[in-house]
Amino acid sequence: MADHDPGPRPNYARRRAALRDLLVENRVDALLVTDLINIRYLTGFTGSNAALLVYAWDTTEDRTIICTDGRYRTQVGEQVPDLRAEINRASARRVVEIAGEWQTGRVGFESHILTVDQHRSFQALGTGLDLVPIPGLIEQLRMVKDDFEVGLLSAACTAADAALAALLERGALRPGRTERQVARELEWLMFEHGADAISFETIVAAGVNSAVPHHRPTEAVLETGDFVKIDFGAMIGGYHSDMTRTFVLGSASEWQREIYDLVYRSQKAGREALRPGVSTKAVDAASRSVIEAAGYGELFVHGLGHGVGLQIHEAPGLAKTGTGTLLDGVAVTVEPGVYFPGRGGVRIEDTLVVRQGDPELLTRTSKDLTEVD
Amino acid sequence: MADHDPGPRPNYARRRAALRDLLVENRVDALLVTDLINIRYLTGFTGSNAALLVYAWDTTEDRTIICTDGRYRTQVGEQVPDLRAEINRASARRVVEIAGEWQTGRVGFESHILTVDQHRSFQALGTGLDLVPIPGLIEQLRMVKDDFEVGLLSAACTAADAALAALLERGALRPGRTERQVARELEWLMFEHGADAISFETIVAAGVNSAVPHHRPTEAVLETGDFVKIDFGAMIGGYHSDMTRTFVLGSASEWQREIYDLVYRSQKAGREALRPGVSTKAVDAASRSVIEAAGYGELFVHGLGHGVGLQIHEAPGLAKTGTGTLLDGVAVTVEPGVYFPGRGGVRIEDTLVVRQGDPELLTRTSKDLTEVD
Repeated sequence: MADHDPGPRPNYARRRAALRDLLVENRVDALLVTDLINIRYLTGFTGSNAALLVYAWDTTEDRTIICTDGRYRTQVGEQVPDLRAEINRASARRVVEIAGEWQTGRVGFESHILTVDQHRSFQALGTGLDLVPIPGLIEQLRMVKDDFEVGLLSAACTAADAALAALLERGALRPGRTERQVARELEWLMFEHGADAISFETIVAAGVNSAVPHHRPTEAVLETGDFVKIDFGAMIGGYHSDMTRTFVLGSASEWQREIYDLVYRSQKAGREALRPGVSTKAVDAASRSVIEAAGYGELFVHGLGHGVGLQIHEAPGLAKTGTGTLLDGVAVTVEPGVYFPGRGGVRIEDTLVVRQGDPELLTRTSKDLTEVD
Repeated sequence: MADHDPGPRPNYARRRAALRDLLVENRVDALLVTDLINIRYLTGFTGSNAALLVYAWDTTEDRTIICTDGRYRTQVGEQVPDLRAEINRASARRVVEIAGEWQTGRVGFESHILTVDQHRSFQALGTGLDLVPIPGLIEQLRMVKDDFEVGLLSAACTAADAALAALLERGALRPGRTERQVARELEWLMFEHGADAISFETIVAAGVNSAVPHHRPTEAVLETGDFVKIDFGAMIGGYHSDMTRTFVLGSASEWQREIYDLVYRSQKAGREALRPGVSTKAVDAASRSVIEAAGYGELFVHGLGHGVGLQIHEAPGLAKTGTGTLLDGVAVTVEPGVYFPGRGGVRIEDTLVVRQGDPELLTRTSKDLTEVD
């Protein structure tokens, strides 16, 4: 953590300045932001109702407006002291009206977020605005994490590492316990180690259930000889960690060793392919080819990984399809898996930050095959 | 719980039959369902990627299709044994293509869910389909809870009641502890009492923070004389409970008694107004008028309540504006509040089911003013 002291507050003004550059490039006068995560990224506001209007040329931010409802009057003042706040329950509509009153011209909107109904209702307002679909602009900025963000990601990953270590140390992963018991105990341990929340519902999948990539914990009882796949994450300051480890209860069989080693090598190849300038497709291929060469390509049924930050899944995706190349500071997971239906499966996953040279590994729990006594 | 034994499995086929009646009314041949909660309601599928196509006249359900990606191949077979499953990562697009291959004609879509980008991409497929915006159809069905659903709502509310009782019994609500400590302990106790998950991040707001309607727990320390407002819920089988209680640490002051009594009377009036055939506006007015008559209408800054079920906030809203009348079986919260900025606030909230005669109260923790020693 010492390397990434997040400091007291992100530089939201700098993020909005970066967005304004993109608005100029996209030839719009302003952008209507309706995605709550994007609003949080740009302003720090965490309420459940908000809209934001950012003007392309407004470097003094006299015109940048955040709108929310009366429940958040106090909160918006505290979290966003640097912007003008408007209070209105129909926050997005109100912001569109203001843009209309100011005769803004071309107003971009998040067409990957705005629903068909919202779009129609804004057009029906008769504001005279030219509403221009611009998908994914802020998500593009969010891919590259600043030091504040890497600090929080790192803290979240450290909490998850500590929780898993504590789980193993207290012997909580043992035959006779249920998947649900293990999942709940691990979640509790994340809170004990500083998590604000959990990143997503913890996956604990034992025995044949480990063959289900996204298994929900059940009352299934752990047994000696099982693979136990644990996919989980902690959240700190809004940032998510994401890690998977697969253990063997007791001694691993030959088959288990073979599959584990294969996924291990695939995951290593994926991590080593992470570098600025490399295409996301090439990273997926580097990892996937290891599994394909072993003849198990059909059993690796998902993409290699995904961006992680304010959302547990965000840009960029690392998959067979898709465009885009990595940049310095992009945070991603690398998580190949091989799943034999009805038998068992292995996934190994880390959260990392792409850097010049080697990527920065944020989840530091050992990936050696661990046989839990 | 004895009154509402949920039984082993909801009757999904009956829910889809009710939807087909609405499709006939809305003069479409089929509906493309892309909202994951709605898909869960109609099929039981809980994965994170899915699309569903339901045909208006397809009573034998030969044409009803659910599509998801390879991660969920096993899960969709287990959870939706009664429908044809298609595996494709671009689940919604694939379903639109199939509808096109079958020359379906008029296909409704969830225009309050589908984004502008998705809509454009489906139109660009050249399927020859007539895509018809139909918002909120399934949400309309979901308002009225069947016995299975009331059973789960009731179980969730019971878990929350039990957790709060345990919190008070173990003396966990006392001066010197932080809001966060209390929130985390209450969440832990919900799991201990059978919750699968928490409904939303628990609100514990002490002293002046109780004046913030949606306060996030901080390191603020509880002090004698504080109002402590606790808004929280448990989730069981996908169904959410929602309850708020406001306590006083030590002896209540005259001012605190006055405000508490006012909100108490307002909440009671709201509950008593719940009845089939009554407009949602009238319920809000019944409760709000009590606070307005005391001269504090300005300090009741939000709506009276909301539907609750598979989502923590769903239809119907109980607010000043909005249309619609209540029906037998609709589940709602009633939660008036009065908030004095910089001083403190009170909210009292229950989850109830509208019934002929008195509504069914699911959250049963006492609402008398409680002074915690």
